[in-house]
Amino acid sequence: MRIPDHIGVIPDGNRRWATSKGMTKEKGYDEGLDVGVEVFKLCEKVGIKEITYYGFTTDNTKRPKEQRLAFTDACVNAVKKLSKENASLLVVGNTESPMFPQELMPYTTRQNLGNGGIKVNFLVNYGWKWDLNYLKNSDSSNKKIIDHIYSNDVSRLDLIIRWGGRRRLSGFLPVQSIYADFYVVDDYWPDFKEEHFYDALNWYNTQDITLGG
Amino acid sequence: MRIPDHIGVIPDGNRRWATSKGMTKEKGYDEGLDVGVEVFKLCEKVGIKEITYYGFTTDNTKRPKEQRLAFTDACVNAVKKLSKENASLLVVGNTESPMFPQELMPYTTRQNLGNGGIKVNFLVNYGWKWDLNYLKNSDSSNKKIIDHIYSNDVSRLDLIIRWGGRRRLSGFLPVQSIYADFYVVDDYWPDFKEEHFYDALNWYNTQDITLGG
Repeated sequence: MRIPDHIGVIPDGNRRWATSKGMTKEKGYDEGLDVGVEVFKLCEKVGIKEITYYGFTTDNTKRPKEQRLAFTDACVNAVKKLSKENASLLVVGNTESPMFPQELMPYTTRQNLGNGGIKVNFLVNYGWKWDLNYLKNSDSSNKKIIDHIYSNDVSRLDLIIRWGGRRRLSGFLPVQSIYADFYVVDDYWPDFKEEHFYDALNWYNTQDITLGG
Repeated sequence: MRIPDHIGVIPDGNRRWATSKGMTKEKGYDEGLDVGVEVFKLCEKVGIKEITYYGFTTDNTKRPKEQRLAFTDACVNAVKKLSKENASLLVVGNTESPMFPQELMPYTTRQNLGNGGIKVNFLVNYGWKWDLNYLKNSDSSNKKIIDHIYSNDVSRLDLIIRWGGRRRLSGFLPVQSIYADFYVVDDYWPDFKEEHFYDALNWYNTQDITLGG
């Protein structure tokens, strides 16, 4: 079976999940923390080489304050949980903004944790404009793109799995996602089941990979 | 019903259609010409303001020569057919390459045809790298992105409809597609039916539009 090298994870549906359980929206984010680690362990099991989690974006920070604090907190805790695994971990995002949680500053340089392992990228206060604007510092004689954006240490994506049913990228790594196959799970992220992951991999296996050709 | 302002059309599946009919692959492209006009007329009918057709890309030009000549020819003819409609037409692509068909040079400046009308963009020898590389000519103090890429006269996409069953963007306008809802039709482009278009619009109407928020 053909396994993708790099999977992108868009963990959406937390607020709708909370509302469906009769809770206020910001209560949904915490439910997804252990799910993030579960997905990591499944990736380890099948031999995925790189995972990128879509934590939160500069767009998201326009949400009501209690939601912003809740999802920021959840991302900080998610990174801390992942840091206990064997991984090569990097947090990517705009650190020059007050929205960036200071507790995650140590993770903004890639480091091997435990025995090292899967390359894990976690997007925190990420913005597609912020990312692409870095190109303006480059010399136009050099035609490469991926090396000259802020997220340059994140490889091209092979498969993106989005929970929560929305069929859109919502600004997720526009350069790395150009050829990615896109699998959508209708269930909300906190309602994660292992079969979502295996269904996505089985579907990916049936796609022809042409890289735009 | 909420109608998208700007629809992107990815007309894929021409070669698979040809093969399924016992023809050689390059014979599939011609079948899609009238379909392109049919989609234009449906857009006019429902009040779409802008349509972008994904003609061919720099990646596609690596295909075998008979296919390249066939799809280039088909794109030239598609633009000529659309130029007979009431539209504001622009061909977008890398004109400095030998792969760009010279017959389309007059269309690389936007012009009103007939009484003017829907804004139609047709991507010919388009490349996502070529598009984004234009940012390198910009001043980094200016934070805008869309104004400083080659495709700057193409607006943000609301809905992308891809025929041919593949669930990926294949390099299609990475900046304008960031928040676009993505609807996939499994049928091949030459097997277009009006219901594909209306199903896509009905589906779009049920999506919440958050623009990444």
